[in-house]
Amino acid sequence: MTEGVRRVPSRLNTDDSGFEAEFRALLGAKREQADDVDAAVRHIIARVREEGDAALIDLTRQFDGLDLTPEVLRVGQDEIDAAHAATPEETLAALTTAHDRISSHHARQMPKDDRYVDAIGVELGSRWTAVDSVGLYVPGGQASYPSSVLMNAVPAKVAGVERIAMTVPAMRGVLNPLVLTAAKICGVSEIYRLGGAQAVAAFAYGTETIAPVAKIVGPGNAFVAAAKRQVFGTVGIDMIAGPSEILVIADGRNDPDWIAADLLSQAEHDSAAQSILITDDAGFADAVEAAVERQLKTLSRGATAAASWRDHGAIILVGSLDEAPALSDRIAPEHLELAVDDPEALFARLRHAGAVFLGRHTPEVIGDYVGGSNHVLPTARSARFSSGLSVLDFVKRTSILKLGPDQLRELGPAAIELARVEGLDAHGRSVAIRLNL
Amino acid sequence: MTEGVRRVPSRLNTDDSGFEAEFRALLGAKREQADDVDAAVRHIIARVREEGDAALIDLTRQFDGLDLTPEVLRVGQDEIDAAHAATPEETLAALTTAHDRISSHHARQMPKDDRYVDAIGVELGSRWTAVDSVGLYVPGGQASYPSSVLMNAVPAKVAGVERIAMTVPAMRGVLNPLVLTAAKICGVSEIYRLGGAQAVAAFAYGTETIAPVAKIVGPGNAFVAAAKRQVFGTVGIDMIAGPSEILVIADGRNDPDWIAADLLSQAEHDSAAQSILITDDAGFADAVEAAVERQLKTLSRGATAAASWRDHGAIILVGSLDEAPALSDRIAPEHLELAVDDPEALFARLRHAGAVFLGRHTPEVIGDYVGGSNHVLPTARSARFSSGLSVLDFVKRTSILKLGPDQLRELGPAAIELARVEGLDAHGRSVAIRLNL
Repeated sequence: MTEGVRRVPSRLNTDDSGFEAEFRALLGAKREQADDVDAAVRHIIARVREEGDAALIDLTRQFDGLDLTPEVLRVGQDEIDAAHAATPEETLAALTTAHDRISSHHARQMPKDDRYVDAIGVELGSRWTAVDSVGLYVPGGQASYPSSVLMNAVPAKVAGVERIAMTVPAMRGVLNPLVLTAAKICGVSEIYRLGGAQAVAAFAYGTETIAPVAKIVGPGNAFVAAAKRQVFGTVGIDMIAGPSEILVIADGRNDPDWIAADLLSQAEHDSAAQSILITDDAGFADAVEAAVERQLKTLSRGATAAASWRDHGAIILVGSLDEAPALSDRIAPEHLELAVDDPEALFARLRHAGAVFLGRHTPEVIGDYVGGSNHVLPTARSARFSSGLSVLDFVKRTSILKLGPDQLRELGPAAIELARVEGLDAHGRSVAIRLNL
Repeated sequence: MTEGVRRVPSRLNTDDSGFEAEFRALLGAKREQADDVDAAVRHIIARVREEGDAALIDLTRQFDGLDLTPEVLRVGQDEIDAAHAATPEETLAALTTAHDRISSHHARQMPKDDRYVDAIGVELGSRWTAVDSVGLYVPGGQASYPSSVLMNAVPAKVAGVERIAMTVPAMRGVLNPLVLTAAKICGVSEIYRLGGAQAVAAFAYGTETIAPVAKIVGPGNAFVAAAKRQVFGTVGIDMIAGPSEILVIADGRNDPDWIAADLLSQAEHDSAAQSILITDDAGFADAVEAAVERQLKTLSRGATAAASWRDHGAIILVGSLDEAPALSDRIAPEHLELAVDDPEALFARLRHAGAVFLGRHTPEVIGDYVGGSNHVLPTARSARFSSGLSVLDFVKRTSILKLGPDQLRELGPAAIELARVEGLDAHGRSVAIRLNL
């Protein structure tokens, strides 16, 4: 990289002496503006807790330009049915394909109860049960995606959650009918036309019209994210998702246009999204860059994609793809495409990625929609310590212990000793008293 | 309950007309003082990020009354070995029993990879890998428990975490040698004498001496809890644990002294702890209450236990134990003892509990130490949506997709259609371009 000239997108080369510093800068770059909305959100939540529906109605008028009454907070079944009925056949078929594939994949994730007796006769176990009720937040406007409804509602359904409520803001009254259609396909019929921190507060604490839920999931803007953080503890929440990312590891035998399209499929989501290419072929890197420039001109969200590519995109040139797994693990990408002849070998050598797409014929977009796996995945390097959304997010485990007098006699003394050294008399006594000690 | 006279502990009766209101008040009562330490913690974290070891040394002098140098931030192996060597045989045996039982139980929790080919030839799967590095916070002073080291370190070890670092504050230089011994038994040798928000910040961001970790676990005071919340996202964290709780469901055929000891074993932890008894036998309730009063006088932590029992304890009288499961689910207790003849029948009828202890010979304390299950469990009704600590907290899942040209041809059109209706051109193109569409 020539001193003082920032190439667009960033071009790094593991052979350069400055590589480590540049790579660290890439990893450390903040892509999200941390709007300080905490105080505003705290105020909104307090109002909803105090005033209930009245606060929801007032805040929805103020933020969404929509006049509601308690009677129409909830979307009517007729409105849901009408949206479904008006959905073109081809779209309905695509949504149904996606729904069915997501369902059957997620069914395999259901954890199994475990109950056993150990060598001394102690019964141990784990029992999994579904969360009773879940609130699903669906963003409004441009990011009101039916696929997001499927990805959040299906795992909850598969887990056996009895009540799945949904909320989606209706800016000036407009709801995306495909969001309602997707909800109907998932069997979700409790839908509110509410958004922002007020919707999160309603799910967490309940109002006259809305019963509280046990867990809130789904993406949202800075207000929604801050509200989820604030109500965490009162209810469960899923991860706080950041802007989308893709890392493509590709050799020079790919069609540059394919890889360019894959990079742009993340970039078009958000100007804060990040697309990175790692390749061992400088000529291929140039060809991809050129292809990106060409394709950018034809995208309806070209300005967004261009900003993302310019500000956050990167091409990392490696001497050999052998170097790629270690770099990839430091990036810990949300999405990882391995566009090489032997993707399995590469995959075996890396550890941190939300989702991996193996081979040249698995564009990440298949995972966004119809692959069957979940598209809610850990961003911002959090794949180092967390996983994508799954059935596990909608169940919880009760651990089980059962001793008889014999087992208590055998294990009791060790427990009494540990209670003693920890200075917890009543702990020791609750065992000793049963053993007449 | 007589108007105006608060009985100690609260006595509720499901037959009373005021029961529902009283029960709601019990559920809604705040037991924790929410110290507003956020600003102080934010300042501490910023200092550690900027000044590294120097900040750790300065803050440790200030808060822990201990003068450190970078060379002695870390506890020496000789110090760990000496603590282990000085541990009495009986204590060592008890710790080892606990360690081995926790290990073998947690080994069963390791999730299995899943890889399969579906009907149309798409390969799907989930691969689990361990988190690379974990920081374990161990409180100092009275709450510096060796059992807590075991309960946090063993699941990490079982999961295959390569680097487990530990930190424990050494107030005026004093470390609990049993904490070091427990660490040695777990194979943990990277131990720092640091506490508070500064220790959490060091784990999250690293300093000259301490490499950052991917996830931070373990209990702590309000500063530690606030610091964990603030660094969440940069690193993973476990749950934020609140004060301990127990619910005992007992018929009249129990020894009141046994049940009293069980109730007190939670109460002695913390004046904010909560012990609740549900029984169908008013005479038994009286007998338990009397036994609690008697036993309180003999506990070294009697004042703490008495405050907990007075302020947060409750006895709920039900007409029949049939009513108990529904009440228990609303409480969603951390620990649930079923001291009845047929505990399995009761257990089958309830859903929300962190851990259940079946039968009259399974005091909860067995689970604290040597049962094999984990004692880090969801508090404050969060068993409605979360689980105790397990191997799952130290692994993460990568989802896998692999299509060939045929599968892409079959699934591609549905993905293209969904991208179209969501207005995401590049998404559609990344599929279409591979199909020459």
